Amino acid sequence: MPVENPPAQPGMRLEDVDTPALLVDLDAYEWNIDQMAKEAANSGMRLRPHAKTHKCAVIALDQISHGAVGVCCQKVSEAEALVNAGVRDIFVTNEVVGLHKITRLASLAKRATMAVCVDNQNNLEELSKVVASLDVHLGVCVEVDVGGARCGVQDAESVLALAQRIQSLGNLEFKGLQAYQGRAQHVRTHAERKAAIHQSADTVRRTLDLLSGKGLSCEVVSGAGTGTYRFEAASSVYNEIQPGSYIFMDADYGRNLTETGTEFTDFRQSLFVYTQVMSMARKNYAVVDAGLKAIAFDSGMPVPLDLPGVQYGRPSDEHGVLDLTEAQVTLSLGSKIKLIPGHCDPTVNLYDWYVAVRGDRVEALWPIVARGAVS
Amino acid sequence: MPVENPPAQPGMRLEDVDTPALLVDLDAYEWNIDQMAKEAANSGMRLRPHAKTHKCAVIALDQISHGAVGVCCQKVSEAEALVNAGVRDIFVTNEVVGLHKITRLASLAKRATMAVCVDNQNNLEELSKVVASLDVHLGVCVEVDVGGARCGVQDAESVLALAQRIQSLGNLEFKGLQAYQGRAQHVRTHAERKAAIHQSADTVRRTLDLLSGKGLSCEVVSGAGTGTYRFEAASSVYNEIQPGSYIFMDADYGRNLTETGTEFTDFRQSLFVYTQVMSMARKNYAVVDAGLKAIAFDSGMPVPLDLPGVQYGRPSDEHGVLDLTEAQVTLSLGSKIKLIPGHCDPTVNLYDWYVAVRGDRVEALWPIVARGAVS
Repeated sequence: MPVENPPAQPGMRLEDVDTPALLVDLDAYEWNIDQMAKEAANSGMRLRPHAKTHKCAVIALDQISHGAVGVCCQKVSEAEALVNAGVRDIFVTNEVVGLHKITRLASLAKRATMAVCVDNQNNLEELSKVVASLDVHLGVCVEVDVGGARCGVQDAESVLALAQRIQSLGNLEFKGLQAYQGRAQHVRTHAERKAAIHQSADTVRRTLDLLSGKGLSCEVVSGAGTGTYRFEAASSVYNEIQPGSYIFMDADYGRNLTETGTEFTDFRQSLFVYTQVMSMARKNYAVVDAGLKAIAFDSGMPVPLDLPGVQYGRPSDEHGVLDLTEAQVTLSLGSKIKLIPGHCDPTVNLYDWYVAVRGDRVEALWPIVARGAVS
Repeated sequence: MPVENPPAQPGMRLEDVDTPALLVDLDAYEWNIDQMAKEAANSGMRLRPHAKTHKCAVIALDQISHGAVGVCCQKVSEAEALVNAGVRDIFVTNEVVGLHKITRLASLAKRATMAVCVDNQNNLEELSKVVASLDVHLGVCVEVDVGGARCGVQDAESVLALAQRIQSLGNLEFKGLQAYQGRAQHVRTHAERKAAIHQSADTVRRTLDLLSGKGLSCEVVSGAGTGTYRFEAASSVYNEIQPGSYIFMDADYGRNLTETGTEFTDFRQSLFVYTQVMSMARKNYAVVDAGLKAIAFDSGMPVPLDLPGVQYGRPSDEHGVLDLTEAQVTLSLGSKIKLIPGHCDPTVNLYDWYVAVRGDRVEALWPIVARGAVS
């Protein structure tokens, strides 16, 4: 709904943008897009970035124009928003359950190349019926639980049974495996992340062996996120990576460590919540106008950018408190600052617009067309 | 932005509503509206419910038609959305800082009775200039820190100085005090909440005494939330209460205790996130389609309604996991269930529509016009 007009205009100075606002630093964002495109090309992986992070057609089309084969979505409503905005190849890396949602998914296949995951026989039969009734074609991957302990079948024999059934059904095409290890993405040490993906790859390898023994080949073996994509790329079993957060990064990914124990700097922080000091009535504290409705807190507090000694804490619905006790900078009423969100995806889901800035100027306003698209 | 059409239609059966969706149980909601109206009337308090909870003009107008004198907002953009939808009396219970935001606030005073809070002299001077230049009238309350340790001036002398300055400025009217104790709302025991508000009321009383000694009277002494409103009403210093959550309630308010240690049942749970089982690949676990983008988790996990022994846990962006180890009910793929959110306000902020249901039928779709209105 048109709650608010765009919160800024191209050409404005950043300092004139009202707060809170969601900023994308274009230099960092473009560096990230290029960097991941190179990483994928160098490792021979297809790149299919996850659009659940950005929910934005402008960004999806940027990614595709830089070599991505399409994007992933997690929800049918996300895919609807992106197809309506011109994205033409979407893999829904999730199970889609129930007649209504399946019908919406299948309808998208009239205008875009669509694929979906299954981990259940009854769901597969319902998918098949709807797809046949609409006379569309749908790619299907079997989701394998490679350690995430969430969705996905638990053993290779069940994958085989589903894959064989998909092959026997008209209008559905067996594409391969969805094998994403979500839990491994934010494990801090390089060695632990590597070990987790090593284990995932073993599971995938055993599954592929069983399938190929029965004459079934997988065109797609997809997985990987921003925290682990190099391990999947090196595994020799995956052929498609689906990272999302790399375009933005967040404070939580910033806490991941490299092999030598240094900070994870494959990508640059490009996403910020712009906020403003709106009360300084207490000594050593400043209240800012971004709280639980402007930042996601599931992965910890946001981190103030370039404000040494300043800590954000005590979020309430519309406020946060900056502790200035050890501050090495001076803030005053109206001071505008950038916060690095703890977790990018659910923070993005709070906003209708990205304010895309280059240096200290607004360059573009990008609508977050799939904001709130949770169904 | 028109991300999604309304997620349901009046007359539909609830079980046909696609998930996730935000439900309002109309019987419980109407009971809550009536109940708070009676409580306010019986205690002689003006009722000015906080619209930051619901962000919905339909609900604001319902509250006003049941005797509320107007509503509170926390953000100028919330107030803009509600004024545009016909609400004509709004108290912004927050400081509004910066020329741009102040201009937006003052512009609303052309069409509605508006009031705002101050806790800073410079901010007050800027307010005065803008209001004069637009030739509008604005009510101003001084915010007093009564224990929230967030915004609000710290001592009675500072309140007096601001109040006297307001009185000296054209176009601004000194209305009184904003004295909300946010921290006390979710303190669990009745005795502790009572003690906290007793202390707040003492601070207010000392302030009122100082002001009245200088010939200043307060038409408005406003505060109170769903967790404490009876204490403010009994204090003899407050004359306006501004509870928000009572219309919906949430799991966290549900953990507050009454004087006798029993569950807090002044109001009924009317807000639910409707979700669906979309994967059951693991023994004893069911995955539902509502995670960090569909429910707020700052006040703990959502609680499944009427599913004894079932626990919601491990939220990720788009999923939650139901632990069925001790379940006394059977769930299957596609089962739709209701979750009581941990915290109502930021959960509402994730949705564009309320699906208002009576029994097992959809009765209305209410747009959440101030969803995402954080500026």
